This record gives sequence, C-alpha cells and structure tokens, in this order.
Amino acid sequence: MSIRALEDLIKEFKKMPGIGLKTAQRLSFYVLRISKKEADKLAKAIIQVKELIGHCSVCGNITEKDPCEICANPKRDHEIICVVEEPKDILSIEKTGEYHGLYHVLMGVISPLDGIGPENLRIDSLVKRIKSSGIKEVIIATNPNVEGEATATYLSRLLKPLGTRVYRIARGLPVGSELEYADEVTVTKALEGRVEM
Amino acid sequence: MSIRALEDLIKEFKKMPGIGLKTAQRLSFYVLRISKKEADKLAKAIIQVKELIGHCSVCGNITEKDPCEICANPKRDHEIICVVEEPKDILSIEKTGEYHGLYHVLMGVISPLDGIGPENLRIDSLVKRIKSSGIKEVIIATNPNVEGEATATYLSRLLKPLGTRVYRIARGLPVGSELEYADEVTVTKALEGRVEM
Repeated sequence: MSIRALEDLIKEFKKMPGIGLKTAQRLSFYVLRISKKEADKLAKAIIQVKELIGHCSVCGNITEKDPCEICANPKRDHEIICVVEEPKDILSIEKTGEYHGLYHVLMGVISPLDGIGPENLRIDSLVKRIKSSGIKEVIIATNPNVEGEATATYLSRLLKPLGTRVYRIARGLPVGSELEYADEVTVTKALEGRVEM
Repeated sequence: MSIRALEDLIKEFKKMPGIGLKTAQRLSFYVLRISKKEADKLAKAIIQVKELIGHCSVCGNITEKDPCEICANPKRDHEIICVVEEPKDILSIEKTGEYHGLYHVLMGVISPLDGIGPENLRIDSLVKRIKSSGIKEVIIATNPNVEGEATATYLSRLLKPLGTRVYRIARGLPVGSELEYADEVTVTKALEGRVEM
C-alpha cells in the first residue's frame, strides 16, 4: 500500500524535533481523520506563523510588530537587559512574571564544533545597545551547559569594560528536587552560589 | 508576550493525539525556525492528504484511487478478507508481507459506552461482499481488547451462517517478550492457543 500524499505528510512530520516514524504516522492519521476544515485551520496556522511573525530589530525576539511589545513598553525597565540564546527562552522567563527589564536574543551560542563563533551571533548589536542606551545591568541567561557557560564567560569579558554590571543567572538545585538525585556539578554550583539566610 | 499567530499554531498542534503543551510549543518554534519554503511544504502536505486521499468504496481503506490498489490487484487472493478496525491496521499487516488477501475496514469497533453499535460500522457492506463474491475465509483482526473482542464475537456469529469460515488472529506472548513479565490474560490466551510442534 503506497499512498503518496500520506507518505509525504509522514515525511514532513518526521522532520520535526522529537518526532519519530511512529509519531509521524500517528499525526498523519490524525490529519486524515479530522475534517477538511480542521486540516485547513492547521495548515493556515503554519503559514500564518511564517507570514506574520518576524524578529524585533532591537532585541531579536519574535514579534508581529517591530519593535516588539516588550521593547516598546514604557513600563518595562529599560536599563536592564537579559541575554538569552533563543526567543523561546524569553517565554520561560516571562512566565515567571518576576522580570521587568528588556531582552536580547543571541540566536544561538558560541559552539566551535558547529562552526559558530561570536561573529555569527547577535553580539555586535548587544554591544551597540549597551553603549548607546544607558544600560546599567546585563543578566546573562544562556543555558547552564558547556556552550552556554562558554558564551556567558565570553560576554562577561566583553561587556564589563563597557561599564555595565554583568550578572549570570543562578545555577543550583531545581526547586522540588532532592539532593540525593542531583549530579555533582549541580551540587557544586549550589554550594558555590549559596545565599545568606 | 502574546504573539497571536504563534498561540494559534500551538493550539492547533495541541489538538493532535499525544501532543501536550510543551511538545506543541516545541513544534511551533520548529515551524518558526524553518524556512518559508519548508513551512509551505508542510502546510501543503496536510492539505494534499485531505484533498487527494479518500476511502476505497469496496474495502474502506484509504486510497488515492477507487477501488484501492489492494482491491484492484488481481494477484491478491480475492477469496480471503481480513477485517480490521482502522485503515492504519492495514499498514501493520501489509508490513509483514505475509498476507495476500483483501481487507475490510470497519471504521471503529462496537462500543456501547461511546454509543457505537454495529449499525454505525461498515458491517452491512462486509456482509454484502461475502454474499456476492465467493469469500471463503474471513480473518477478524480487531484489536485484542474488550471492544475488539466483543466486535469479533459479534461478527463471528453474524458471518458463520453465511457459509464462510471465520478466523480470529492469534493472541499470545509477543515475540521477544518474557513469560515473567506477561499479564495473566495474555498467558491464558497463549496456553489456550497452543500449537502442536
């Protein structure tokens, strides 16, 4: 049984992150099962995302307007910039409701093995923002893995001479976890980053 | 941060089976990341599936032509029908390469709790096929769960009086599994279905 249109859809779904053959098949059969109207809605949502969403020319966040809602919001603290790897990281931080400054998206991390150096990231524009608009504090929120730490160290050395204070997000035990199951590096970081009570 | 087009896509992905909020977000960010051309390919594949694929008027299998490739194939054994719940079950059986007869898709199973009775399934057309085209053997391959077994029993009682031989697929221990970890019902079925060596 070879049904070209179905095979094509399975192939497209399989390209998605974390989607294997079995899941791609299940999703394709789901599309087969739903109404034409529902399938059109799904296809349209995919196309709309590409047509309506672009990047903010200031911070690099994804947005339907330029500059984005965060950069354009006068109520946010325009003296603090939080540096993240990807636009989706902004979502994680915004969900806490605890951060009220601006963002800057690097669009990746320094990763020599993948041929990505500082010149491939949005670092120049970060330096320009800091120089031109009185940024007092930079919080580096790249991921706490090898590439993220290397990028954070690189940025810290680059930005401190500009006269801004540079912070790194805390690394330690996740809330609700147990010491028994934490890896050594995390426990080390948790000890190093201990906070006075 | 509320980006309408992205929220819409996440909502559509979340409707898919086995896709939760986190995965829907990951898939949506994947769509954001790929090129416009790639996204168009994905959207088109979804629409094509609905536009090009219909059901075979004979067996109910999904197909781009009517009757489907299997029903139209003179090399298949036209005296045997394998009855399955859904078109995707045909895929599983065809993959074995061991079955060369025809199929009949019920489009579901008898499930009183969901309000699905025999009249809601493609059972009338199965009876008609058996009466009109000299079917000698029917293999009932509904799933080995409560609804599947009930449907198999119902079909067996309905079809036997038509003079055709009715078989049920074997239930037993999956190949590669271990007795120790099998549930009691499966082991019981494996004992009942023992084959002489």
